[in-house]
Amino acid sequence: MNILDQLIDALRVLPGVGPKSAQRMAYHLLQHNRSGAQRLGLSLEQALSQLQHCARCNSFTEAEICERCSNTQRDPSLLCVVEMPADLAVMEQTHSYGGLYYVLMGRISPLDGIGPRELQLDKLIERASDGVVREVILATNFTNEGEATAHYVGEVLRSRGIKVSRIARGVPVGGELEHTDIGTLAQAMVERRKL
Amino acid sequence: MNILDQLIDALRVLPGVGPKSAQRMAYHLLQHNRSGAQRLGLSLEQALSQLQHCARCNSFTEAEICERCSNTQRDPSLLCVVEMPADLAVMEQTHSYGGLYYVLMGRISPLDGIGPRELQLDKLIERASDGVVREVILATNFTNEGEATAHYVGEVLRSRGIKVSRIARGVPVGGELEHTDIGTLAQAMVERRKL
Ligand SMILES: [Zn+2]
Ligand SMILES: [Zn+2]
Repeated sequence: MNILDQLIDALRVLPGVGPKSAQRMAYHLLQHNRSGAQRLGLSLEQALSQLQHCARCNSFTEAEICERCSNTQRDPSLLCVVEMPADLAVMEQTHSYGGLYYVLMGRISPLDGIGPRELQLDKLIERASDGVVREVILATNFTNEGEATAHYVGEVLRSRGIKVSRIARGVPVGGELEHTDIGTLAQAMVERRKL
Repeated sequence: MNILDQLIDALRVLPGVGPKSAQRMAYHLLQHNRSGAQRLGLSLEQALSQLQHCARCNSFTEAEICERCSNTQRDPSLLCVVEMPADLAVMEQTHSYGGLYYVLMGRISPLDGIGPRELQLDKLIERASDGVVREVILATNFTNEGEATAHYVGEVLRSRGIKVSRIARGVPVGGELEHTDIGTLAQAMVERRKL
């Protein structure tokens, strides 16, 4: 394979990119945005070599334990479980929560072959069982998959004697945290209910 | 900006990729396809450092002059003008043409701000005026933009005393070469008419 075809092929690792758009991307980069392509190449390299999962919250970080988890100002007795880093970011914007987080990096989704094992829920269970966490707050999306995930995680943690709550259904049914206005989300955090 | 945000931002250089899909791509690569991401990074680097425009046909090549243009078996008196490398590739599959090519790397498209100057048509004119080329065959798409490009390029070349032809309208009106069956395309090449 020549170098151009190699690039077109490599672009197909991106989700949602088929042969035609990979081709279009390659031409566009080589023709119109070489500096952007250079930046992308370097960013990929840097991210792969320097990003890892935080040993405590499972989110991406450049250190072994991320800044947020190392922050002694935060309440270590509260652990908020979200699906993705973007959910954590929007939750932080509410300024309604001062505890720690655990990022699942996904959700239970049988159709995509993602079950409890693929989500490495044992890592969450271990984290929640550190003796310091007193309450786990489930803040997965209110989609079918997010609800199923909350239900499953809730069952597992409660069976281990851990107190579990779910953020209030202030978030519209079927809605995603990331697209929810900050006020609603803040209310949902305040009104969380014990499971 | 942290390394993850840098990667998400860098992915937005890809055409058609907005902030949400860039985020999804970054998570996907870091989480599920690190080797693919590595390959993409290397391919970008390699393509940027090693691909250039062929001095004769303007397509991408790893040498100063590409293999096709260096092939003395091909008829240097015929020059077929196509929009993109993919068009050249499908034309080659017809086995109906043994001359050389010139790849515009685009088409005249006023709505996108691409005029004759942006297409560097002077490079084509110079190429077609080498004294060896006896006929320029316009094989741009039969879309509005491709037709406008053929019309403009045809006028310019004919005004310089160069014989110009257009592949026959065997290609359906509004159709793109890449999506045309090989037989139709071969017929269109045979039935090309002088402009
Ligand atoms: Zn952390
Ligand atoms: Zn060439």
